[in-house]
Amino acid sequence: MFREQEIRQGEVQVAVPEQVDAWLIYIGRIHTPWTSRMECPRQGRHDGPLCRIEIFSPWVQGLQDVGLYERLEVLYWLDHSRRDLILQSPKSDGTTRGVFSIRSPVRPNPIATSIVQFERIEGNMLYVRGMDCLDGTPLLDIKPDRTLFSPLAAAQPGDFQVGD
Amino acid sequence: MFREQEIRQGEVQVAVPEQVDAWLIYIGRIHTPWTSRMECPRQGRHDGPLCRIEIFSPWVQGLQDVGLYERLEVLYWLDHSRRDLILQSPKSDGTTRGVFSIRSPVRPNPIATSIVQFERIEGNMLYVRGMDCLDGTPLLDIKPDRTLFSPLAAAQPGDFQVGD
Repeated sequence: MFREQEIRQGEVQVAVPEQVDAWLIYIGRIHTPWTSRMECPRQGRHDGPLCRIEIFSPWVQGLQDVGLYERLEVLYWLDHSRRDLILQSPKSDGTTRGVFSIRSPVRPNPIATSIVQFERIEGNMLYVRGMDCLDGTPLLDIKPDRTLFSPLAAAQPGDFQVGD
Repeated sequence: MFREQEIRQGEVQVAVPEQVDAWLIYIGRIHTPWTSRMECPRQGRHDGPLCRIEIFSPWVQGLQDVGLYERLEVLYWLDHSRRDLILQSPKSDGTTRGVFSIRSPVRPNPIATSIVQFERIEGNMLYVRGMDCLDGTPLLDIKPDRTLFSPLAAAQPGDFQVGD
């Protein structure tokens, strides 16, 4: 199950620094069938339920041309997650893994990324399949899937740089 | 070229809401060969230059087991980017695209994601190939590439849900 606030055997907690280095705006909200963290998929599936991503004003016009891409990368904020566990026990059996070696929702910056299947746009609503989050999760960003996207702007020197 | 602060023909600017919905911590810093935004690759390449990701205290222990994955997803903060252009002209020719249909660094929440090739870990330094950002860019998160990662925790009901 998704953790609530407990710390499991073997897990290592750190004191999170109090500085605020940057700030986020919620640009929308994700509507899914899951209202309990015990129900959410671990990983979304492209034949999963239709989910609705609501875009808030003033960002709606940014949806223009999104339908050019069959798959999208969605970034969202796991606002129920604690942020202070650097070693975690995903199986609750005391076997720990570093936080950067797992895709746990518990992270220093709890940003989740999913690749979803585009379905359609209606007004300020984007319909997709492949989400895995709780109903009401705050939206941070939408981008074309990197494997489908070619930069429109001219290449730069770094694009040709290989190396040591 | 990467934009500095100019607005190009046809681009649409909005007033960014003043609310701060969530806050980020910089957990490290990315060291690359590129010190000008005119040099950075548009897209990183896995045969590109070796780059060094420095992890700050208290997060270093979170690197444990990261080397189990050949590819990693890196999230970073584009701290030089403006955030208020919802229609953009990537070719500077007045042809606009919605911000969510491009992978421009200019976005409401300027979080970039890259898939990189793991090379090695030395102390608090993670060496990778495939970055595309300026030297000194703040690090937000590291996760295993989704295509290589299987959840360790038991499946939940949503994992089996297909649907309408």
